[in-house]
Amino acid sequence: MPLIQISLVEGKSPQYIKAIADGIHEALLTAWGIPELDRFQTITEFKKEHFIINKQMWDVNRSEDVVVIYITSIKRSQEMKLALYKELVKVLGNNPKIRKEDVFVTIVQNDPENWSFGNGIAFQL
Amino acid sequence: MPLIQISLVEGKSPQYIKAIADGIHEALLTAWGIPELDRFQTITEFKKEHFIINKQMWDVNRSEDVVVIYITSIKRSQEMKLALYKELVKVLGNNPKIRKEDVFVTIVQNDPENWSFGNGIAFQL
Amino acid sequence: MPLIQISLVEGKSPQYIKAIADGIHEALLTAWGIPELDRFQTITEFKKEHFIINKQMWDVNRSEDVVVIYITSIKRSQEMKLALYKELVKVLGNNPKIRKEDVFVTIVQNDPENWSFGNGIAFQL
Repeated sequence: MPLIQISLVEGKSPQYIKAIADGIHEALLTAWGIPELDRFQTITEFKKEHFIINKQMWDVNRSEDVVVIYITSIKRSQEMKLALYKELVKVLGNNPKIRKEDVFVTIVQNDPENWSFGNGIAFQL
Repeated sequence: MPLIQISLVEGKSPQYIKAIADGIHEALLTAWGIPELDRFQTITEFKKEHFIINKQMWDVNRSEDVVVIYITSIKRSQEMKLALYKELVKVLGNNPKIRKEDVFVTIVQNDPENWSFGNGIAFQL
Repeated sequence: MPLIQISLVEGKSPQYIKAIADGIHEALLTAWGIPELDRFQTITEFKKEHFIINKQMWDVNRSEDVVVIYITSIKRSQEMKLALYKELVKVLGNNPKIRKEDVFVTIVQNDPENWSFGNGIAFQL
């Protein structure tokens, strides 16, 4: 936890995709201070016509390389969310050089009791 | 925002799938009054055996053409939700002629600060 | 409802995957008392490099056979959640013999009015 579902258009190299996944984890380490091993990510590639992300909405000039980062997490403060958005853009801008306009994030929150990481028991109970 | 994850069984034509995606957007324009450009959708096709949607539960006689519409959005009023369900059935019933029993919707809500549409900044902050 | 999104690494047999889906439904019948027909599941297989689930975090010794069970549901009590985690491990441990460390669950909750099971109307309204 958090669980990170990463979506992007198909056709990118394995190196490019790995850099995205690594970068998102790095940004979470910095912005949220999660443990190094707390990495749970899925990556889904979509055909262009199945990945319909508007290029201009919300005053942003997106390209076809937009990455949608869907985060399911326990509650985080507004400060932590803002720090994460900033850090994601910085880290992914360095490698694999994703434009800052192409980092799309949404966060869905739940409670610790809503997670089981194995063994049939809840988180922190 | 909203982000719309559309799931259906594989084997449909590109035209059919496009009509679903277009129709869902049209229903959102009408029922929620979102901006025309506010379109963020992903489409996933499942093998029949990986898309296990009961055909009779909740007094509904579903076919194999059921479409699951998973909406992540900021909070919407009950009135807006009811209007959306109605509008989705109407629009998708016209094209691509989906039966009203085959429109399955769930909405997960979060706050404006939980969205970043690019540039490393939060929505409306 | 609930809607269950099941994720696992690709390469398993149809029988194995069916046993997981059946088992999850069985656990929900027991732990939450949902109706027998109330089964709505999607299954997604990921390439190994697109399914990045840490093997050790949270004191759990996971294998590559971890199954991520993402549940979207109306609100459930803490007691029901704990019962479900326990039951999932038991049932999936029997068949297809998934290790208890490999059952990963998260639950996202919403309200009855956030669901439409067809016909353009909300659940319980």
